[in-house]
Amino acid sequence: MDAKRRRVVIVGGGFGGLEAAKALAEVPVDVTLVDRANYHLFQPLLYQVAMAGLSPAEIASPIRAILAEQSNVRVVMGDVSRIDLEEKRVHLEGDELPYDYVIVAVGAKTSYFGNDDWEAFAPGLKNVEDALEIRRRVLVAFERAERTPDARARRKLLTFVVIGGGPTGVELAGAIAELSRHVLGRDFRAIDPREAKVVLIEAGPRILPSFTEDLAHSAVEQLGELGVEVRTGSRVVTIDERGVELEDGAEADELPGLGSGKERERIASETILWAAGVEASGLTRTLGAPLDRQGRVVVGSDCAIPDHPEAFAIGDVARFEVPSAKGKASTVLPGVSPVAMQQARYVAQIIAWEVESDGAPPREPFWYLDKGTMATIGRSRAIADARGLKMRGFIAWLAWLFVHIWYLIGFRNRVVVLLNWAWSYLSYKRGARLITSTGWQPRGAPPSRAPSLPEASRSRESGRPRERAASPSS
Amino acid sequence: MDAKRRRVVIVGGGFGGLEAAKALAEVPVDVTLVDRANYHLFQPLLYQVAMAGLSPAEIASPIRAILAEQSNVRVVMGDVSRIDLEEKRVHLEGDELPYDYVIVAVGAKTSYFGNDDWEAFAPGLKNVEDALEIRRRVLVAFERAERTPDARARRKLLTFVVIGGGPTGVELAGAIAELSRHVLGRDFRAIDPREAKVVLIEAGPRILPSFTEDLAHSAVEQLGELGVEVRTGSRVVTIDERGVELEDGAEADELPGLGSGKERERIASETILWAAGVEASGLTRTLGAPLDRQGRVVVGSDCAIPDHPEAFAIGDVARFEVPSAKGKASTVLPGVSPVAMQQARYVAQIIAWEVESDGAPPREPFWYLDKGTMATIGRSRAIADARGLKMRGFIAWLAWLFVHIWYLIGFRNRVVVLLNWAWSYLSYKRGARLITSTGWQPRGAPPSRAPSLPEASRSRESGRPRERAASPSS
Repeated sequence: MDAKRRRVVIVGGGFGGLEAAKALAEVPVDVTLVDRANYHLFQPLLYQVAMAGLSPAEIASPIRAILAEQSNVRVVMGDVSRIDLEEKRVHLEGDELPYDYVIVAVGAKTSYFGNDDWEAFAPGLKNVEDALEIRRRVLVAFERAERTPDARARRKLLTFVVIGGGPTGVELAGAIAELSRHVLGRDFRAIDPREAKVVLIEAGPRILPSFTEDLAHSAVEQLGELGVEVRTGSRVVTIDERGVELEDGAEADELPGLGSGKERERIASETILWAAGVEASGLTRTLGAPLDRQGRVVVGSDCAIPDHPEAFAIGDVARFEVPSAKGKASTVLPGVSPVAMQQARYVAQIIAWEVESDGAPPREPFWYLDKGTMATIGRSRAIADARGLKMRGFIAWLAWLFVHIWYLIGFRNRVVVLLNWAWSYLSYKRGARLITSTGWQPRGAPPSRAPSLPEASRSRESGRPRERAASPSS
Repeated sequence: MDAKRRRVVIVGGGFGGLEAAKALAEVPVDVTLVDRANYHLFQPLLYQVAMAGLSPAEIASPIRAILAEQSNVRVVMGDVSRIDLEEKRVHLEGDELPYDYVIVAVGAKTSYFGNDDWEAFAPGLKNVEDALEIRRRVLVAFERAERTPDARARRKLLTFVVIGGGPTGVELAGAIAELSRHVLGRDFRAIDPREAKVVLIEAGPRILPSFTEDLAHSAVEQLGELGVEVRTGSRVVTIDERGVELEDGAEADELPGLGSGKERERIASETILWAAGVEASGLTRTLGAPLDRQGRVVVGSDCAIPDHPEAFAIGDVARFEVPSAKGKASTVLPGVSPVAMQQARYVAQIIAWEVESDGAPPREPFWYLDKGTMATIGRSRAIADARGLKMRGFIAWLAWLFVHIWYLIGFRNRVVVLLNWAWSYLSYKRGARLITSTGWQPRGAPPSRAPSLPEASRSRESGRPRERAASPSS
């Protein structure tokens, strides 16, 4: 390493961090990328791992392998404990990395809005471990239903509740419905998996608020075709081993047969999935910088942390406000991968200019180019809005498929995922329907629960700094 | 179900159990297949999962899906606690299955010959959880070495010890050497993965005793080309967090530079893998039937348990003695999948004859047709012995590849595995290099160790009844 070269430390190997490292390839700086995991995860397809359509390795690539040819990058697998903006150091277990520039790109994690006891009954979908746990719970529910003679208990086992009507919730609900109706159809003898009930719960007046009203309406229709029951205006008040308790508000209750006014209702379910909210990784609290309610760092128009022009926060971990020209309220950029990647390239460009020229050029504000958003609902079903060009149904699904496979990291993964999908599409079979136990242990360890119970095991931390926003928009 | 039809319960969905279920397809019996897992595992390729070449789903298929079209079979996912031969019932959690015939095919598990405390430091390779744990340990060792400045500690991290010179040990040692030399080559900055030291330890006078001496010699040569150090006549006396302690016997010490006589030596290593022995699943102890030292049920020439003509034990769980005609000592059939599958078809045939005809025909003794054995040593390297036709090197590897892909359950898996291999072969890349944490837990649970430490976590039981012999012969 050249002693005079500036040191750039990137914390997080998600869409933002990885893109920043790549964008610095030709810049004369020494880059260190730190992540707790050894792989970059293609988060938009994580729900496919949860629903047994794909294996983790098909949507993840080792960060080292992606950056192997880029000689100015060093990859460190490690757990960052704090970032000291004054001393300009990133601290990780027994080690510290001094920097001239730091890019904080550690992403978001699932938020239960203070109800952390809900997590054990309703896991979120942010990382590979979450996805395998959700896969295990969903598949085990069918296995246990097959062995349960009591009709009421079986009904509970075959009821799946997804909380949160954003893109992730819609994808999960659609995928469970599809799994039960098409994939598992003939595999059981005592139960008919097609009788599984899938309920999507949203507290707000409608699902997919980031889409236009007519596209969201189309999504409700497409979910209905798959048999998913959509409940809007329903606020979750309790989640426990018995199921979910809801409070139905008077506003925008789209389902017939439900009373208006505040009524409480319980849905008995063994399998509840949480897709209702995210917050920034806890690492932001170590910065001493201003944070918003979701723990995101409030950054300036140059993506830098106030009073620290050498420290940037990008992607889901940052709150970037776009001022409105027409006197309207300013908007905050959404937690989607294109924002993170465009911010990464912008920050890399700033660093390149500053290290390559003597005087510090003035920083132009970051400007986000919104190319569109899409959400998939199941095989052949989706909605998409590409700068006003609205698509729904099969054509939207094709667009979704094309965009997602195009952006999949690694040629091999693209081919394997495409092959897997072609196979699933033609055969209605799922290749990854394995119920794997959630932990290895020496057999000498004290015996614990049988692996067919859905309770989580006590083991190591699964929270990772690279947890990212669940919104799978393009 | 027809009340008069006989009930056949098969315990275990490995090679033996699954083959028995299939062989009973046209027989008028009601079959119930019980397994703790929901998938059939193609055990011979499990070492590829451990070495990051394949994903679990690529070598495993849901048992339900395999048997979906066979209407006389019911699949139950459950944990069998005991089998009552007198009452003719199979007991599983909160349930029992009465039978007219039972086929016990629960396979083998790793045996530490009474040194169960070794397991935490030296996992065996019997199921998917084992494979992912081994993968994690091997990959984490390189990651930690990259961050370790101390030369001695780095040396320990880059030393991999495989204990046991049977086919599984040879495969694992060869695969680690290949991973370090070819796959990880350019990914690191501080270390050169090619400096990794791989030691294969065998207590007996030579490796691969089930092969002829010249083929075993060829295997030693091929391992040497990959950089694996083979130590025979070395008995393991201690395994702990520091590494392995060996006692070198005087006999057949093939390495120069090592003294003869009983000498103790320590190899400092963070990553030790155990491939030195197996024993039958603990379920055999509930039978009250005669067992051998490895816990296998001693069966008669018709694969039935003595005094219980309706109860069969097949595959790795059975001790089947072949009497020698020439006055020599009798031999015991090895724990390889062809034995299990041939016994399965034989037992299914007996059941078919007995339920379809009135009088009970006399049972002809089971006769094993040995088609050959093979072991792979790495990319393009193997040995094979097909009824006297001996092959080594590339041609043996092609034979191995053909046989293993041919027998992979499920067309899709065959295509995906072939594609993965073609890709790995051409690019020297590995698609499944993910270090996944060994357990999911709610984040509210007490914090535990960081995921980069190789110690096992406390969690649920990983021993499964379908654990099978590691011998990957054809």
